[in-house]
Amino acid sequence: MNRHLVPAVSALAVIVTFSAAAAAQEMKPDRAIKYRQGILQAMGWNMGVLGAMVKGEIPYDKDKAVRSATFIGELAQMPFDGFVPGSETGAPTKAKPDIWKERAKFDKLAQAMQAETLKLVAAAKTGDVAQLRTAAGATGKACSNCHDDFRNK
Amino acid sequence: MNRHLVPAVSALAVIVTFSAAAAAQEMKPDRAIKYRQGILQAMGWNMGVLGAMVKGEIPYDKDKAVRSATFIGELAQMPFDGFVPGSETGAPTKAKPDIWKERAKFDKLAQAMQAETLKLVAAAKTGDVAQLRTAAGATGKACSNCHDDFRNK
Repeated sequence: MNRHLVPAVSALAVIVTFSAAAAAQEMKPDRAIKYRQGILQAMGWNMGVLGAMVKGEIPYDKDKAVRSATFIGELAQMPFDGFVPGSETGAPTKAKPDIWKERAKFDKLAQAMQAETLKLVAAAKTGDVAQLRTAAGATGKACSNCHDDFRNK
Repeated sequence: MNRHLVPAVSALAVIVTFSAAAAAQEMKPDRAIKYRQGILQAMGWNMGVLGAMVKGEIPYDKDKAVRSATFIGELAQMPFDGFVPGSETGAPTKAKPDIWKERAKFDKLAQAMQAETLKLVAAAKTGDVAQLRTAAGATGKACSNCHDDFRNK
């Protein structure tokens, strides 16, 4: 094969692989469940960093706080793409079927959480630990407000 | 209990829960492995959307393309936090131990991928499918460049 063709062919192979995945994800609940779980656990990881920082378990570090808060704010926009109809089952999930029966309520709690994460980013950027603590608490509360109603233990 | 105290107590409980998770994630490779896998599969999901779009398998939609490209660009900054020393094992993983033996090479491939995702976001924003196709191919190639060397089949 002409060696100049190799990169183009490889790139095409990658797109083919990814689009096969896309076709599957349009239909299969297990992919949607794993998607939302991946995003939500990454949010939890970064919330853990901030939680440890505001409690003094790890040293306060403004750059790390901004980094984790920014990631949380970005990730907060993503998980709801994975709560597609039919994904009540298909893989192990703690999501309650009520999500799809009371979608407006679920969406409202989701939006409230997203709004808190924007405040969290702003608080982290101030460099003031007290503001970070308040905002992290409010964000955590917004997470648990939804978990209380829509996530099984 | 004074009802005005309840929100503060609940928020504190949430922080305690999250910081317990943080303490664990500092040490336990399984958490790091799940973190990076969650991020990487979310990148794959969104690459799948773009792949299907540039191949015409799903209708081209500029807003959706920008959304997925933006998510990919944001997510691209995140997974490497999960490649902590000691996380060669601890949960099922395709990551090769070479990552920790040739870290500079791995990091260089990671940075090259991150750079491609920024071009991907810019290409998506042009609204030109041809530019999106080229950038998606280049991003996919940057993904596979690293997978080829550092991910088991």
